[in-house]
Amino acid sequence: MFGGNFAERLKFLTDMVNAHLGETERRASENIGERSGIAEAMNYSLSAGGKRIRPVLTLSFCRACGGNEENALPAACALEMVHTFSLIHDDLPCMDNDDYRRGKPSCHKAYGEAMALLAGDALLNAAYETLGSDGNLTAETRTALMRELSHWTGVAGMIGGQVIDTLYDGEFDERLLLDMYSMKTGALLKAACRMGCISAGADGNALAAAERYAEKLGLAFQIIDDILDITGDEKLLGKSVGSDAKNGKHTYASINGVERSRERAKLLTEEAYAELDIFKDSDFLKDLTMYLLERNY
Amino acid sequence: MFGGNFAERLKFLTDMVNAHLGETERRASENIGERSGIAEAMNYSLSAGGKRIRPVLTLSFCRACGGNEENALPAACALEMVHTFSLIHDDLPCMDNDDYRRGKPSCHKAYGEAMALLAGDALLNAAYETLGSDGNLTAETRTALMRELSHWTGVAGMIGGQVIDTLYDGEFDERLLLDMYSMKTGALLKAACRMGCISAGADGNALAAAERYAEKLGLAFQIIDDILDITGDEKLLGKSVGSDAKNGKHTYASINGVERSRERAKLLTEEAYAELDIFKDSDFLKDLTMYLLERNY
Repeated sequence: MFGGNFAERLKFLTDMVNAHLGETERRASENIGERSGIAEAMNYSLSAGGKRIRPVLTLSFCRACGGNEENALPAACALEMVHTFSLIHDDLPCMDNDDYRRGKPSCHKAYGEAMALLAGDALLNAAYETLGSDGNLTAETRTALMRELSHWTGVAGMIGGQVIDTLYDGEFDERLLLDMYSMKTGALLKAACRMGCISAGADGNALAAAERYAEKLGLAFQIIDDILDITGDEKLLGKSVGSDAKNGKHTYASINGVERSRERAKLLTEEAYAELDIFKDSDFLKDLTMYLLERNY
Repeated sequence: MFGGNFAERLKFLTDMVNAHLGETERRASENIGERSGIAEAMNYSLSAGGKRIRPVLTLSFCRACGGNEENALPAACALEMVHTFSLIHDDLPCMDNDDYRRGKPSCHKAYGEAMALLAGDALLNAAYETLGSDGNLTAETRTALMRELSHWTGVAGMIGGQVIDTLYDGEFDERLLLDMYSMKTGALLKAACRMGCISAGADGNALAAAERYAEKLGLAFQIIDDILDITGDEKLLGKSVGSDAKNGKHTYASINGVERSRERAKLLTEEAYAELDIFKDSDFLKDLTMYLLERNY
């Protein structure tokens, strides 16, 4: 089902993101002298085999709104930087204390805690540097993108979700758990989809549909993560399974069981899919939506 | 010397910054529910008695360029947020491991390491949220401010200075030490002065003079900090003196002695002072420059 055009196009978009991230990284590493360790730590995590789902969504929503994908590259790369920053800080000993990420030592295991802390800080900041400097965007677009990214990254979004995760470890009721998912995972996906639309100069209707799509997709995505933590293949995932249960962490799948969770993820994916109808050129996004439901890593 | 008008005006500007920070904080805390702990931790550090030097410089350079100070409030508050973020992360156990800051327990001693980490992240991000949303600035001005703040905060500026500090703890030669001072302290002061000019719509000449001023002032400022770590009053400083020597840390004052360091700080201050001549309304800035040289906390 996902062969041919879809696989080719996914690779094309992923390569485009990687090339732009590599170029940004190369520029940042120039004349850096004593500070080269930080560029290495940032790049280590940035190129550690992430699936690039957020930037691919950004480019695809830009295209779906009739825009040129190139225009969405600053937003796409900024989002991947924010995502990577959050993973580095999440893995630190004072947070989840994870030694591995995507099958490789996590940033603080490879570079030490101080450098991992600073690499995360630098990536969050570099996201805004990218929004301010990269590409040929108008000041209005850059300002709108800064507003989006900062809103969904901050206390009302991803960081707020991390706070709930930190405060309520293990003692979730379902409502609080879904709120946490919506913020910790959903918020940055909303930013990814909306920032793609903004990069194309799309209207409020497109933004609202993109946000509803991301809300559904984000929840489905997180539930699938929960299922994979119970049933997944450690080699494919690049991390040990059963870590949630081991950490005494309630998840949607542990509360509701694998079968019911699979049904919920499928229903959410179908609802997300339906939101794509208003976009002009949404074939790739529709395939991507189904592909994410069926992923096994 | 610094009585009357100067003291009144310094208080007026500081109060203006505090009121705007308080208002931003109040808005951020609304409807925050389970996440109220993070707003508390952010506010704890943000209102821990900082001298507000950076935001006061921003407002004053805006005024010196003929602008209305109100227009510089978003930039001023964003800078204080970035400064506070850097202090919270600097105090963490994996960095300087400082239990006290301005006479109060540091953020992680009061709220735990995870919450301090997230409060720092949230403050860095909130700086950009403030630049994107606060006040009545044009998109061009907001974009220019985002570019400035991200440049001077990042690997080329403050965070780069923290990296050098982390990597070279105790083994500095004078050149590397001055580079580190220029980045760790100077970069954010450059941002403060330049962003004030930008908020007033000033030209490139003003920006260049503001940057030279900040370079001199930043170095003088750091050397005075070094001197106070040797000769200062613990009660006034709100921290223990002698911490640099105790940590085996070379500073400009430990390498060159207190007397020679005082002379250097005085000379740098005079050079900074001279850069202010091109500005229309620089009386307050001139007084502020001398005031910072003579500070004892």
